[in-house]
Amino acid sequence: MILITNDDGISANGIKALTEVAREFDQVIVFAPDGPRSGMSNAITCNKPLKYELVGKLSNVTLYSCTGTPTDCVKLAVQTVFKNAERPLVLSGINHGSNASINIVYSGTMGAALEANIIGIPSIGFSMLSNDVNADLEPAKDIVRFILQKYYDGEYDSYYTDTNSDVPVCLNVNIPDGEIKGVMLCNQARGKWSEDFELRKNANGEDEYWLLGEFHNLDEGRTDTDLYALANNYVSVVPVTTDMTLRFCPERK
Amino acid sequence: MILITNDDGISANGIKALTEVAREFDQVIVFAPDGPRSGMSNAITCNKPLKYELVGKLSNVTLYSCTGTPTDCVKLAVQTVFKNAERPLVLSGINHGSNASINIVYSGTMGAALEANIIGIPSIGFSMLSNDVNADLEPAKDIVRFILQKYYDGEYDSYYTDTNSDVPVCLNVNIPDGEIKGVMLCNQARGKWSEDFELRKNANGEDEYWLLGEFHNLDEGRTDTDLYALANNYVSVVPVTTDMTLRFCPERK
Repeated sequence: MILITNDDGISANGIKALTEVAREFDQVIVFAPDGPRSGMSNAITCNKPLKYELVGKLSNVTLYSCTGTPTDCVKLAVQTVFKNAERPLVLSGINHGSNASINIVYSGTMGAALEANIIGIPSIGFSMLSNDVNADLEPAKDIVRFILQKYYDGEYDSYYTDTNSDVPVCLNVNIPDGEIKGVMLCNQARGKWSEDFELRKNANGEDEYWLLGEFHNLDEGRTDTDLYALANNYVSVVPVTTDMTLRFCPERK
Repeated sequence: MILITNDDGISANGIKALTEVAREFDQVIVFAPDGPRSGMSNAITCNKPLKYELVGKLSNVTLYSCTGTPTDCVKLAVQTVFKNAERPLVLSGINHGSNASINIVYSGTMGAALEANIIGIPSIGFSMLSNDVNADLEPAKDIVRFILQKYYDGEYDSYYTDTNSDVPVCLNVNIPDGEIKGVMLCNQARGKWSEDFELRKNANGEDEYWLLGEFHNLDEGRTDTDLYALANNYVSVVPVTTDMTLRFCPERK
């Protein structure tokens, strides 16, 4: 069984493309936000209840729409649809826009994948570098198929699970816009956004700040990062963890 | 200069307590959400503009209230009030409730601290284990004072910055409820929430799911974790990173 969610909402082209490929491999449950939830990170809904409803069913795909965040969707689907019994593979995306480098921290797409990892379920987040919601998704679908085949072949099992064998693999996969030369296993590049906000006056003459900003690669020169891979037309695959402890190798217990 | 924010909102007792201690050390700008933003993680506001306003000023404390998330607050304060010039120390909290173990991932308090880290500013997130918003904050204030003194004495400089010297320290500090025996430097314990939702009928007879859940320590037996420290009446201090790449020591580049 495969559980699919995203942060662009259940109607986005990216989740449709991901579902089309995933159903070639297994039965699929789509359990996704009822609208856009970009930039929601690992946010959870604390102060109001959630609802979900069945919105469609075709041969091996069942679709549910949920009022929550991407993280809520994973939690709620696992508890309700899966009843904590079978542990699905969780796929999130295909996000319209990059989640490479520090974008993982803000990403609802990766928030869902990380939530799966926390509760012990293998997961892969897919993002493509085009922000055009009508972009051609066929090249990205080929990459999803390629990565899923590797996953089912066990290629990610031995290398990328944690020292605790019950922590499954969690991959942050980003797909270049345009030519694709191959797939590269890499590290999360250091990066940041600066000058994030643009000041505009609203209709009442009040100051309002719109999030825009400019992205900076703080690991320029390194050739082992996701930003390097993507800049050189490679798909980036970064195995990630939710253990945020800062460690230096020699001191790691 | 010290920038203070939180996720419980500018009126919470925790941020008042933190401000009272911080102003003993330096000039303070409070720039905090105008209401509760718990569970917001590193969420950013993408699809609508933000506003902020000056809400108070006393000797060495200036207070601004903002419509955004904790992460938005750090970004917007640094760009507007600080004009990207002076880099403040960012303090977040004191959160009412634990942000130890995996709670860091969902925490708006730590989201703000991590955002500071991303943009190159040292930061400390403070949380206390009592969820009682009217809890006695005097013991927690003593701990904040103790940690801040250590910070200004440079005790965290040499040990906990990353290999890249321009990545400053980011600490996740959690304070036990009750007796405090000391301060322990530790690792983030593996943990998870399960059975997160409780099903209730709303007034229209519809199913609604409320987030509740039960927390599990997945590192029972380890004595070097934040959960161990807190269970044994020690303050836990975990130096954290936003580099989420999964690495094994021997293979780390």
